[in-house]
Amino acid sequence: MLHIIAMKDEKIFLAHGAGGKQTRVLIESLILKYFNDSLLKSLPDAAVVSIPSDSERICFTTDSFVVKPLFFPGGDIGKLAICGTINDLAVSGAKPAYISCSLIIEEGFSIQYLEKILKSMAKAARKSCVRVVTGDTKVVEKGKCDGIFITTSGIGIKRYQVPSGLQDIKPGDAIILSGVPGMHELAVVCSRENLNFDMTLKSDCAAIDGLIDGVLRVSNRIRFMRDPTRGGLAACLNEIASGCNFGLKIYEDKIPMTEQVRSICEILGFDVINLACEGRVVMIVDCEDAERIVSVMRKHPLGTRAEIIGRVSCECSGRVILQTIHGFERFIRMPSGKQLPRIC
Amino acid sequence: MLHIIAMKDEKIFLAHGAGGKQTRVLIESLILKYFNDSLLKSLPDAAVVSIPSDSERICFTTDSFVVKPLFFPGGDIGKLAICGTINDLAVSGAKPAYISCSLIIEEGFSIQYLEKILKSMAKAARKSCVRVVTGDTKVVEKGKCDGIFITTSGIGIKRYQVPSGLQDIKPGDAIILSGVPGMHELAVVCSRENLNFDMTLKSDCAAIDGLIDGVLRVSNRIRFMRDPTRGGLAACLNEIASGCNFGLKIYEDKIPMTEQVRSICEILGFDVINLACEGRVVMIVDCEDAERIVSVMRKHPLGTRAEIIGRVSCECSGRVILQTIHGFERFIRMPSGKQLPRIC
Repeated sequence: MLHIIAMKDEKIFLAHGAGGKQTRVLIESLILKYFNDSLLKSLPDAAVVSIPSDSERICFTTDSFVVKPLFFPGGDIGKLAICGTINDLAVSGAKPAYISCSLIIEEGFSIQYLEKILKSMAKAARKSCVRVVTGDTKVVEKGKCDGIFITTSGIGIKRYQVPSGLQDIKPGDAIILSGVPGMHELAVVCSRENLNFDMTLKSDCAAIDGLIDGVLRVSNRIRFMRDPTRGGLAACLNEIASGCNFGLKIYEDKIPMTEQVRSICEILGFDVINLACEGRVVMIVDCEDAERIVSVMRKHPLGTRAEIIGRVSCECSGRVILQTIHGFERFIRMPSGKQLPRIC
Repeated sequence: MLHIIAMKDEKIFLAHGAGGKQTRVLIESLILKYFNDSLLKSLPDAAVVSIPSDSERICFTTDSFVVKPLFFPGGDIGKLAICGTINDLAVSGAKPAYISCSLIIEEGFSIQYLEKILKSMAKAARKSCVRVVTGDTKVVEKGKCDGIFITTSGIGIKRYQVPSGLQDIKPGDAIILSGVPGMHELAVVCSRENLNFDMTLKSDCAAIDGLIDGVLRVSNRIRFMRDPTRGGLAACLNEIASGCNFGLKIYEDKIPMTEQVRSICEILGFDVINLACEGRVVMIVDCEDAERIVSVMRKHPLGTRAEIIGRVSCECSGRVILQTIHGFERFIRMPSGKQLPRIC
């Protein structure tokens, strides 16, 4: 049946979103080929999913993805959508369990690209043992969206009491970053603008549920976790600082860095601290557990460059201070203005 | 703060979606004004929600809404998004509990319209006691989407064993329709094309969780429920027929109808059976309970015109047969082709 759709309809037509025969063909021949979960197969209005009987709390999250270009070094919109939703659940202390996937597709979109994206989504979901159990497909007229937009929502089973919350952050707590920041945004921008500085630059796009799970096994003194996506470290740390009302002091020389990222940022005039990651985590943890957490992270492929990058401080409450490699101090502000659109 | 955003920024800018300061202002001054759930206020990556300790099964659904025009008689894209998600949960036998809301907005979109849509979403959610607990906002460049697209996902608590499923449908079961079909699609199309046949024509867009709840209290012999959206009764009944492998026979003279709907369909050349509803339900129920269910429905404001419109039959397995008012029989086929795009 896939063959039929691939041969006959190389592009998406409005009929594929009309809810009739062609929608059925698209779903059965292409979408169910990759998302072959037993719950999805009967195409119910809603999937009935089980949750462990001892879980009274679940986590629920949603994100729309409008990244441009759809394919970039290290990933694509499909991988990004699945990983982004998994990561939002993981930083909330939940085990990602179920994902929904809603597609808005532009008339004329290549079915070959759609298949590539679905394949990539399925692969990412499988890797984290997350089930794609429900979805929707809409098609809009040519020129009324930009290729494809994907919205994923996720349900996770809350297993840990940690993270305990912003209110538990106290001066002296350590700030940990799991790896080199900004690689996702740089990879997307270089790909979008055809800037071939370095063919090896790849997005850090990845699901970090495994990395976080390892940490949660060795420490119950994690106050807060967040994946620094839009607005990068700057937005993430400012949100934490204003939420806990202490100062956050970070040290430039502790931020994991590569020569590649540093030089591309210099050429483009970017401050790496404002750039989005899609496979990193910032943790605020009790200082006594910090070294142990970093050492656990470094054993995980996605955390080899983990570092304690700073401390929570009594000074400058609600603000983020960067101590530069030259020893000066400056405030890191919440990013403002449009920055680079459509990086996720 | 709303005042500030309304005065300064009458339109949505790319900065509103960049994850920095302006995103924060938009969320805090406008979105949280209407979605003021305690869980949403701290803007976590994922909302931690409670589920009753005796519930081991939950329902999970998602839908993207791309309706055009955004505002139509009887509703708007916001009301449609909330009601659509509530209805998908309700027809699955679940009590709608939590909703996520993800917005993709076009640069330059009117903040006044956005506010109107958010207000409408909040009102619809409140009416069904559903909490909007998590969300996302993305902004794309002018011309890269069409005003606003909304994706809502929902979690419902599965309370009933019914509907028992397509596999339990048997010949003799009754087919019930809760009201006049097709009014949503007609209202949207007339509004889009500026066809002012009758200013009183309104979409049937509504949340039918209350209607369904009433029915579930008086019958545990409901086999299947679905809200006939895209593709209308024709798509809905064909899916049921092919899923249960019996024939479905419906009687044209039993389908609830108004002179208004009939005459607009005649003028436009539409077959009402193909037209989408957004506030109706089709039920397949044990024939012994059918009359009781219809009488319960009729006491609800959204079910006053409920009727038994047909029966499950041994004949023509997998097909839908319509007996016309003239006594002839014809097959109702799965709608095919593009039909009318963007009605939900």
